[in-house]
Amino acid sequence: MFPLGSGHHDSAADLYRWATDLFPIARSITGEGTRQTLNYVKNLLPDLKIHEISSGKTVLDWTIPKEWNIKTAYIKDQSGNKVVDFAENNLHVVGYSKPVDIVLSRDELEQHLYSLPLKPNWVPYVTSYYKESWGFCLSEEQRSNLGNGPFHVYIDATIQSGSMSYADLVIKGSSKKEILFTTYVCHPSMANNELSGPIVAIALARWIASQPNRKYTYRFVFAPETIGAITYIAQKRRRLKRRTYAAWVLTCMGDDRTYSYLPPRIQGSPVDIISRKVLKDLKLSFEEYSFLDRGSDERQYSWPGVDLPIASIMRSKYHTYPEYHTSADDLDFISESGLDGSLTVMKNCISYLENNLTPKSTTYGEPNLGKRDLYPLINKVNQRAATPDLLNFLIYSDGHSNLWEISESIGLTFDETLLLYKSAELHGLAKRNKRGK
Amino acid sequence: MFPLGSGHHDSAADLYRWATDLFPIARSITGEGTRQTLNYVKNLLPDLKIHEISSGKTVLDWTIPKEWNIKTAYIKDQSGNKVVDFAENNLHVVGYSKPVDIVLSRDELEQHLYSLPLKPNWVPYVTSYYKESWGFCLSEEQRSNLGNGPFHVYIDATIQSGSMSYADLVIKGSSKKEILFTTYVCHPSMANNELSGPIVAIALARWIASQPNRKYTYRFVFAPETIGAITYIAQKRRRLKRRTYAAWVLTCMGDDRTYSYLPPRIQGSPVDIISRKVLKDLKLSFEEYSFLDRGSDERQYSWPGVDLPIASIMRSKYHTYPEYHTSADDLDFISESGLDGSLTVMKNCISYLENNLTPKSTTYGEPNLGKRDLYPLINKVNQRAATPDLLNFLIYSDGHSNLWEISESIGLTFDETLLLYKSAELHGLAKRNKRGK
Amino acid sequence: MFPLGSGHHDSAADLYRWATDLFPIARSITGEGTRQTLNYVKNLLPDLKIHEISSGKTVLDWTIPKEWNIKTAYIKDQSGNKVVDFAENNLHVVGYSKPVDIVLSRDELEQHLYSLPLKPNWVPYVTSYYKESWGFCLSEEQRSNLGNGPFHVYIDATIQSGSMSYADLVIKGSSKKEILFTTYVCHPSMANNELSGPIVAIALARWIASQPNRKYTYRFVFAPETIGAITYIAQKRRRLKRRTYAAWVLTCMGDDRTYSYLPPRIQGSPVDIISRKVLKDLKLSFEEYSFLDRGSDERQYSWPGVDLPIASIMRSKYHTYPEYHTSADDLDFISESGLDGSLTVMKNCISYLENNLTPKSTTYGEPNLGKRDLYPLINKVNQRAATPDLLNFLIYSDGHSNLWEISESIGLTFDETLLLYKSAELHGLAKRNKRGK
Repeated sequence: MFPLGSGHHDSAADLYRWATDLFPIARSITGEGTRQTLNYVKNLLPDLKIHEISSGKTVLDWTIPKEWNIKTAYIKDQSGNKVVDFAENNLHVVGYSKPVDIVLSRDELEQHLYSLPLKPNWVPYVTSYYKESWGFCLSEEQRSNLGNGPFHVYIDATIQSGSMSYADLVIKGSSKKEILFTTYVCHPSMANNELSGPIVAIALARWIASQPNRKYTYRFVFAPETIGAITYIAQKRRRLKRRTYAAWVLTCMGDDRTYSYLPPRIQGSPVDIISRKVLKDLKLSFEEYSFLDRGSDERQYSWPGVDLPIASIMRSKYHTYPEYHTSADDLDFISESGLDGSLTVMKNCISYLENNLTPKSTTYGEPNLGKRDLYPLINKVNQRAATPDLLNFLIYSDGHSNLWEISESIGLTFDETLLLYKSAELHGLAKRNKRGK
Repeated sequence: MFPLGSGHHDSAADLYRWATDLFPIARSITGEGTRQTLNYVKNLLPDLKIHEISSGKTVLDWTIPKEWNIKTAYIKDQSGNKVVDFAENNLHVVGYSKPVDIVLSRDELEQHLYSLPLKPNWVPYVTSYYKESWGFCLSEEQRSNLGNGPFHVYIDATIQSGSMSYADLVIKGSSKKEILFTTYVCHPSMANNELSGPIVAIALARWIASQPNRKYTYRFVFAPETIGAITYIAQKRRRLKRRTYAAWVLTCMGDDRTYSYLPPRIQGSPVDIISRKVLKDLKLSFEEYSFLDRGSDERQYSWPGVDLPIASIMRSKYHTYPEYHTSADDLDFISESGLDGSLTVMKNCISYLENNLTPKSTTYGEPNLGKRDLYPLINKVNQRAATPDLLNFLIYSDGHSNLWEISESIGLTFDETLLLYKSAELHGLAKRNKRGK
Repeated sequence: MFPLGSGHHDSAADLYRWATDLFPIARSITGEGTRQTLNYVKNLLPDLKIHEISSGKTVLDWTIPKEWNIKTAYIKDQSGNKVVDFAENNLHVVGYSKPVDIVLSRDELEQHLYSLPLKPNWVPYVTSYYKESWGFCLSEEQRSNLGNGPFHVYIDATIQSGSMSYADLVIKGSSKKEILFTTYVCHPSMANNELSGPIVAIALARWIASQPNRKYTYRFVFAPETIGAITYIAQKRRRLKRRTYAAWVLTCMGDDRTYSYLPPRIQGSPVDIISRKVLKDLKLSFEEYSFLDRGSDERQYSWPGVDLPIASIMRSKYHTYPEYHTSADDLDFISESGLDGSLTVMKNCISYLENNLTPKSTTYGEPNLGKRDLYPLINKVNQRAATPDLLNFLIYSDGHSNLWEISESIGLTFDETLLLYKSAELHGLAKRNKRGK
């Protein structure tokens, strides 16, 4: 048993505090910001293993890029004022910008500027990982006030052979079957996409690790998006494919808006059944997307030949909310309740996995509930006698159907159904079919 | 062949007369009233076997209760008037009431009275089989006129070691595969629930027994509800499970309101296909219930490990009509046409079972209907030529699909489809695939 | 590969010209008119094999009828005027009319006349193949102006032992699996039903024969309806059943009205998938019929024991348009664009068959599109980033799903999906799973 309420629970305030700590760090797919982030995670998850993979190494169809690090970057106007400054917001520099120290006219500078005309106060997030380039992101307002130049453009960055950092954590259970959670640590100062995923992952892992008995083995991956997943698959594909029973990408889990669900490539797999059932049981309305709307590491983990059954339960989904990939996706956009709600959903998913079983009724007809004090002994006058839930539960306990299925047949939540099983087991009315699903 | 129109048919008037004869008897799950009822049934079905099982015997999770018999019971007021009298209506005494001879105040009496505030003229039906108790049921009107007491309460009843009575009848067919009908004989003076089930069962059994050729073996069970089914399963579970091809609970079949259908636990089994198809073919509208709305002996016969495919086709379903389990469910509530309509439905179900077969077309293209005088020889002018039903029948006669399935494919009733088969067989255009379903 | 655009394409004008040439010929299920028609077809398809089968020969449940030939036929009035004349329109004589040379009163003549009261200017089409008879068809207007008679009725026809003509053409491919197209050549002067089918068949066969590489073997049958199909099945049933992968009846393909689709007996077979997908991809709205609405040679070819998966994609379906089986189904009813549209649909069906394959992605994660210049290198500002179609294609390329299925999963047409495969194959990102479907 793996009771939902037991074990170590980090508070919503804890989660939000971690987000606050991690928010200012300048992350990218490589570099010190990401390393610093992983160390912060390791502080909370001491068994986390941090790995480095060298620049230039081939991973599947890709190559580990050079490592990018940046110290300072700004645009100074004629008067020496820093009109755009990396120190103020790390979104101001295009990710992987090469070092620059140059004086440019306004016209020349224009080709290196990115802003959002329709959102005059927001700074966009732009990267150029695989093509050498440089640029600045700024608000439309900043841009319109830049003046004529000339400008002194300065980026103190390095793009050098180094390594890419990623981490994983395995929490063993009694079975070799694994549940995979993956999240990414390559976004600079944005909150929902993406600090919320790592935050929820940390709390979830701490809760799982605190449980004394686990059926499944849990694997958490913290890595840069795309290239990190590619790297992880390059190293562990056969094992992941053979062992993974269910998997989730943890992303966009921090705000308070309606939930979003991205189903796995192959519908009807356990991860799909559980995700939908948890959202339904918790009475959380959600927007359902198509697998064609995918946009995170399920792109890699469900690739043919990897084939993990992987889904995402999100709040505001990437690509769909105005603040996405801008400076407006900040600590105000996410909330304690947003993070905590997502954490609760994922804890429930695990509970549904851990506590699922295939019950078998022990009698060959309805048991006598009366003699066990489980039933009203006098039939009440002309009552519209609904069958007791326990009898509904038992009549579907055929030794083939599991609790997920039975709960649907009898119109109850998984938790209610599990409770019925426990009551039935206590009274010797049902037992577990160990050969069942 | 098992023609629907052939054999012995009891008239609607016969059915109603049997109900009238049986109505006054004070039945319960044990006792002389039930025995007397079974003897009446045996009079109409001489091959019926009546069984007794001793009090105290263990059956599955249950124990056969002591036998309850009652002679007299009344409440007398101060003036010696019988203000409630079992002799007037056997619903007045709570089933399994223990013997009582006591004087009580109005207040003391109140805790033993049951009435229906919203139906001031109806007497409710109440039992207390498994907890020793006593009580009286009366109309709200009677209750309000009782006066202040003290009252002399008298119940001349016995609850003693004895036996429980039940009966079964097996009508053999050429196959060992069985069709089960079960109904119950434990209700005192109520008509729809439950005399209608035994009445229809008697007529159905008499009709089946009069048929010279039967494919299936038919088993009828007349027993107290729940404990009777539990007992029957305790004795014959393996045989029932192995042999039963389709089963119906016969209950609530007497009134003239719309039909009701309670599907089996596992939908799509033959009993489900046939029940729906008969109702559809006879153009009977019906209310469809969920298996979760079950409330009769399908609770036992479809228990895991028994697993009979068992359904009910009813008129007004138990738990759903106002008169249910009250004195208003009387001989006026049921009717000749109500009983006869239900009987016709069940006869059709049997005809669909007995006459089903898997046809195979004998030609490798449309047969020449013209040379057999089965087809108009001159194509009529610009007619919107519908394919003749016979050709539709033959093109679906692939040696795998049975008449139930083909009739659905070609949009005809089972009887129409059977007629097409007979015509096709007569002209050598189709034969029976004996290996078919 | 079997590119849709390559090979020999007859023009819409060619098709219409063939129809004009063939229209006046007096065809029936036997006789010189049909023979003359098959010779015209052979002129365009030199490899066509014309067969003769003798009158009186047994084919399945049928007998090849005597051969019917007709030279002259008329009705003369008292003044010697030909008031109805076969020379004017071959629909004027009931098909298979026996020779007659007789003088009749108006009353006697009436029993041999067929007209359409509601369509006063149209001549109906009537036949009496299997019962010796005679008659004339005329417009309601002609009939009302006939006068009182007596009339001289003259039919110079012969019904004699001879033979029935039919033809087939096999165009070999690398596989023994066959695609069957069947059409019929037994209708006299009517255009949509039925010259359009043979016309489209000719053009389709010429296009297929001009393709250098064919996966499938193609079989075309030109035969009288019903008795011709019966004959063909009598001779080749086992071969047809064993080899045929998909089949279409070509009929009613000439007018410009909405398309019609008659599905095969067993839905979901390749012919059903392809037909629906082609109509959908080409954005052609169509009326879907039930298999029970069938009326052409699918009646024979999908008979049990033959079991070909056979469908029809038509324009105005037989039995459903007012002009059907009348003189109004003439060369004005069909059009170049009508014929050409149907031909295009069928060419697409073949392209979907020939070009289908089961792709398998070669990587174990998304390929790096950037390094292949297949992807924008800089992520654009806050774009609502749809996944590129190529990645959608590749993630469904699991080695099991074929292009028909993948195209549905990713919401593209078959041609778009095929193009994605070619691009993927070119860049080494996917290959063909030869063991796939």
